Amino acid sequence: MDRRKFIRSTGAATVATAALAAPAIAQSMPELKWRMTSSFPKALDTIYGGGETVARYIREATDGKFQIQVFAAGEIVPGLEAANAVGSGSVEMCHTCSYYYWGKDPTFALGTAVPFGLNSRQQNAWMYYGGAIDLMNEFYATHNLVGFPAGNTGAQMGGWFRNEIKSVADLQGLKFRMGGFGGKVFSKLGVVPQQIAGGEIYQALEKGTIDAAEWVGPYDDEKLGFYKVAPNYYYPGWWEGGAYLHTMINKAKWEELPPVYQSLVKTACQAVTADVQAKYDYVNPQALKRLAAAGTKFHPFPADVMEASFKAANETYADITASNAAFKKIYDSMVAYRADAFLWEQFTDYTFDAFMMGQQRKKAL
Amino acid sequence: MDRRKFIRSTGAATVATAALAAPAIAQSMPELKWRMTSSFPKALDTIYGGGETVARYIREATDGKFQIQVFAAGEIVPGLEAANAVGSGSVEMCHTCSYYYWGKDPTFALGTAVPFGLNSRQQNAWMYYGGAIDLMNEFYATHNLVGFPAGNTGAQMGGWFRNEIKSVADLQGLKFRMGGFGGKVFSKLGVVPQQIAGGEIYQALEKGTIDAAEWVGPYDDEKLGFYKVAPNYYYPGWWEGGAYLHTMINKAKWEELPPVYQSLVKTACQAVTADVQAKYDYVNPQALKRLAAAGTKFHPFPADVMEASFKAANETYADITASNAAFKKIYDSMVAYRADAFLWEQFTDYTFDAFMMGQQRKKAL
Repeated sequence: MDRRKFIRSTGAATVATAALAAPAIAQSMPELKWRMTSSFPKALDTIYGGGETVARYIREATDGKFQIQVFAAGEIVPGLEAANAVGSGSVEMCHTCSYYYWGKDPTFALGTAVPFGLNSRQQNAWMYYGGAIDLMNEFYATHNLVGFPAGNTGAQMGGWFRNEIKSVADLQGLKFRMGGFGGKVFSKLGVVPQQIAGGEIYQALEKGTIDAAEWVGPYDDEKLGFYKVAPNYYYPGWWEGGAYLHTMINKAKWEELPPVYQSLVKTACQAVTADVQAKYDYVNPQALKRLAAAGTKFHPFPADVMEASFKAANETYADITASNAAFKKIYDSMVAYRADAFLWEQFTDYTFDAFMMGQQRKKAL
Repeated sequence: MDRRKFIRSTGAATVATAALAAPAIAQSMPELKWRMTSSFPKALDTIYGGGETVARYIREATDGKFQIQVFAAGEIVPGLEAANAVGSGSVEMCHTCSYYYWGKDPTFALGTAVPFGLNSRQQNAWMYYGGAIDLMNEFYATHNLVGFPAGNTGAQMGGWFRNEIKSVADLQGLKFRMGGFGGKVFSKLGVVPQQIAGGEIYQALEKGTIDAAEWVGPYDDEKLGFYKVAPNYYYPGWWEGGAYLHTMINKAKWEELPPVYQSLVKTACQAVTADVQAKYDYVNPQALKRLAAAGTKFHPFPADVMEASFKAANETYADITASNAAFKKIYDSMVAYRADAFLWEQFTDYTFDAFMMGQQRKKAL
């Protein structure tokens, strides 16, 4: 029996009801304690920290009424199970990457980054103004999820290789630890993608069980020590031109949230989208210089690798869009914006940055 | 007499005090009605809209308890007086650009953008992780202001010129409508900066009273119609590689805000930093194509103009830092990050974007 029914049935006086009723503010801002399961270990303060910042912004703005406790990967469920646990309702929310779940449906990949997709700023434009948040949520709903971008890494590096890659021929049979959907594309060029958890990559690289491994970028990669055993560091990570992190919430739980909290969650996630990118852009340059001092050899991927990868990506998209309507709808939206976005970038942003990079090379900055 | 003193002096019973006291939530989240004076007209939905979005995020997350009413430029005070009105306490807050006030002290310019400074992502890195928000607020405090970034335009265009600019020689005596600090630098090359309000630029350009005018970028500039009378559209706007908008708050009013609202204001502003940039990045490509269809001639500034401007900027910085300690402290912080940031950008972000821009030029996207 609920309290209101109890009061009615016992005939309690109106004045008593008024005295007992919570003030209006408590109805719109109830006390809640939720759990957030992160896909990341605490050691990765950039991306794990993104989830903690979402929780902190929400806690502070509600005077502690909406509490979200963040758990590292493995504390509740393994990192790559985070969204599954949220969809099933065993945890209210998670901080993850949607593309970890591309094996269930490749449409999940579009929420994070796809090969030769958008860069970080373009991702924001497409999500917040191109309708992509709504498009993704039409799809997430079929998995009992609601999701919002909450952090971006920027363009990731292409990974650490024991030996140099001089052309596509060097990719034949190459055992490369890489995440999800990008591996599907790279396998068309002869790469053999390997799925290995973060903590085991170093040993596999050292022993030569694998030939190469990609992770994120200088700051995160430095912590895992890859430069000691695979000194050739390639770029760009064409499969992640601007990779999003996400806050995902169980759909029924989301719908129970009062509008005040729904709005705050969205605002906090958008703020964290800026915050995580800002942190990466501040800490990566310093890590880059430390890696260089430690003997890392930096290489761009050879032009034929880039061109062949682009072709392989387009073949992959043609295959998937032919059979997956949800993927096609969102992919087409991204592609329609992408061409215009990379046209516009050639004007003022590119020429400003190119001039400044030129001054940096001349040591004039 | 305040209420507590009244209760003490009348000897009201403890129980009465308890009954009258507001519940804890109301103390941490009081009902507030503030005014925000914008530096922008409503017609500029990008930048004026940034202030409205700050207000909306705050209103929604407080269930309407913290209401901020936004006024367009001129409704309370002229656009370029916004921060002055806030500093003096006649309005609680504004949405503006700090560099509008560079005439009072050039240190204000560092909060928005300075010639050959940082791009949009780098600005965020420096502000949120490089300590620049705190550095700027040490300075803003001397003007009774507290300020937070709340929107970014990205690199702006260099403006509309009646005639082509083929070298530095063509800048001699050129009457150029341009904002603040950039004009100080450009004047070293013979440009004669003109201060003209937005609504009067078109007529001045048409009549030839001025030779050129800069505003923001394709989407905003298109509305003002400059392409009809000055068809040469130059880039990049080297004086604004990533120009911030700001929420500024009267310092005493800020200090009266409960911590819940202080945190929410900061979160909302950070979210709007992402939001305004996202909107520009979505609407500018479309406007660019419309302007091209209308006959706009796009030109990069000649190399000698860029190099001479860079040299003039550095001379200007040398002059100012020699005599302005506040400017020097913040400028040095920016410069220390800038060189590393433009080094790092040359790796994965630049090579990813360059490859994609190449595909765009080949019409392969």
